[in-house]
Amino acid sequence: MIKAIEWLDERVRFLDQSKLPGDEVYLETDQYEIIAQAIRSLQIRGAPLIGIAAAYGVALAAVRARKEALPIASSVEEAISSLRATRPTAVNLAWALHRMKTLDVRGCSAGDACTRYVMEATAIHREDERMCRQIADAGLKLIPPEARILTHCNAGALATGGAGTALGVIVAAHREGKIREVYASETRPALQGSRLTAWELSKGGIDVTLVTDSTAAFLMEQNRIDLVIVGADRIASNGDTANKIGTYSHALAARHHRLPFYVAAPRSTFDPALPDGSCIPIEERSGREMTHCGEMLLAPAGVGTYTPAFDITPASLITAFITERGVIYPPFDFKSL
Amino acid sequence: MIKAIEWLDERVRFLDQSKLPGDEVYLETDQYEIIAQAIRSLQIRGAPLIGIAAAYGVALAAVRARKEALPIASSVEEAISSLRATRPTAVNLAWALHRMKTLDVRGCSAGDACTRYVMEATAIHREDERMCRQIADAGLKLIPPEARILTHCNAGALATGGAGTALGVIVAAHREGKIREVYASETRPALQGSRLTAWELSKGGIDVTLVTDSTAAFLMEQNRIDLVIVGADRIASNGDTANKIGTYSHALAARHHRLPFYVAAPRSTFDPALPDGSCIPIEERSGREMTHCGEMLLAPAGVGTYTPAFDITPASLITAFITERGVIYPPFDFKSL
Repeated sequence: MIKAIEWLDERVRFLDQSKLPGDEVYLETDQYEIIAQAIRSLQIRGAPLIGIAAAYGVALAAVRARKEALPIASSVEEAISSLRATRPTAVNLAWALHRMKTLDVRGCSAGDACTRYVMEATAIHREDERMCRQIADAGLKLIPPEARILTHCNAGALATGGAGTALGVIVAAHREGKIREVYASETRPALQGSRLTAWELSKGGIDVTLVTDSTAAFLMEQNRIDLVIVGADRIASNGDTANKIGTYSHALAARHHRLPFYVAAPRSTFDPALPDGSCIPIEERSGREMTHCGEMLLAPAGVGTYTPAFDITPASLITAFITERGVIYPPFDFKSL
Repeated sequence: MIKAIEWLDERVRFLDQSKLPGDEVYLETDQYEIIAQAIRSLQIRGAPLIGIAAAYGVALAAVRARKEALPIASSVEEAISSLRATRPTAVNLAWALHRMKTLDVRGCSAGDACTRYVMEATAIHREDERMCRQIADAGLKLIPPEARILTHCNAGALATGGAGTALGVIVAAHREGKIREVYASETRPALQGSRLTAWELSKGGIDVTLVTDSTAAFLMEQNRIDLVIVGADRIASNGDTANKIGTYSHALAARHHRLPFYVAAPRSTFDPALPDGSCIPIEERSGREMTHCGEMLLAPAGVGTYTPAFDITPASLITAFITERGVIYPPFDFKSL
């Protein structure tokens, strides 16, 4: 299985996703600043994976402080601030950093404190891996035989600590022989569908058909889709869901064609503090992601652009949420989730 | 104004749209085969413009036959077959070729026959130019003050013999000071929105904001769009409309947000022979348009693709049709259209 991130004896090894599908390049670092930059530049992306990477970043800061005999608490504090500022929408980042921040290391030696930070980050990673398995199990029940599934962006091994959320369900359903067709929408502008999902599924031996984002509705009109399943970057209390730009279009089309539209996400993606989707901060990426391909100009120089990285799908368009605690519906019971 | 195509003393001069927005290159030819290839390769595109170009192609064949003292009738016949086979969806192509084919040149000298072919092609061009003005006049009445308009693909001077259909309306509304914002969706995979519409509007001094196709629905959810206006490649008797892939998504989103969705097209785009959209042939383009950018691979090599160039928007999602005879609704009265 693809290992998008790993803790290797006081270093972090991660797959540089910005180089895919052309090159499968792994980078190693012992500096949290490199992790922060990797998150900002989409070398590491996917809401759960961002959380895991940030936690490892904090662990790297603790290790460095111990080695350089600097105060661990302030080093950790500084790393947390820096990592928190990398991207605004995925709540898993804040969630993981909150766990690292509230870790109780009072009275610990530098060595012990450091070990606890590393253990906590590793625990976040292992929990996410387990949640992926549980989400896959829960989602499997929703997949009919001979399913023709559409997914958007990448919510797979490249986005999580395990086999993925939405793609985890697809991989499990494929293993059970329930899949007839998987369609991946390319996911403009950064093309996570083409570059990552198509690569990841192909590598896993699962045939995938790539379509442009705006072909999805036409596929549904042609009766070629049975259900849609996507991941999420943040889910508000009422079920409104921030996910990659284009998710809302797919949800609207699914509703029009009376198809189920599922969101698969672990507990760390839910944000009980937010009443609804209007409160979710939406990151805007550089217009360059749309107007350029490498150095090639795809639009007239200086044209105006609007490039939100995410959109909000209202809860009313979402058939169900697939979580590690099973299939749930809003209003959520956050105590048992 | 941009002249996408011109008849210049027994030659055709056309803008190579495949080079935009980087280079504004005009090509000249006296060979219909070059016109056919230009249509196939999208150097010349846009339903009305394809019709005009094909008519000029037939005129070129007649001129060549006259010069080489070959039988004009069979040369014209051959050119018509070849030009008809270039692209299947836009009915304007068949419509224009039918006009050229049924031109009565019995008893004419070679010189006279040739002149008549040239005059007929020129007439088709001039009529389209006039239709654009009439469509703009008719459409203008539908545009509210301070309008925020979304368009898709390119239905402008680069797609017609005049100022365009959908863009013709936008340009006229801009002239009247009725426009607050124009959004163009990039139109994957061939990016006619980015490459052509943004270029054409910018050149005309109209500010435009480029968005990815799947951002359109989110713009509507944010209450940033008042209406959608697009062109068409073929309109069936019942009003079902083939237009660039992604049009159907925009229409679904517009309906969900209770926004007007207009199709602007001349008579030559209507196909009275077809009862509904299911009869419209949909061209599939090469998957390479999606998986490559120049030579750069955007998806894993060998991935499956589905790349229809058009989709069908059912008449029920279309608020009105803007034609040279005014704003109309199905069922159409083809006698008066």
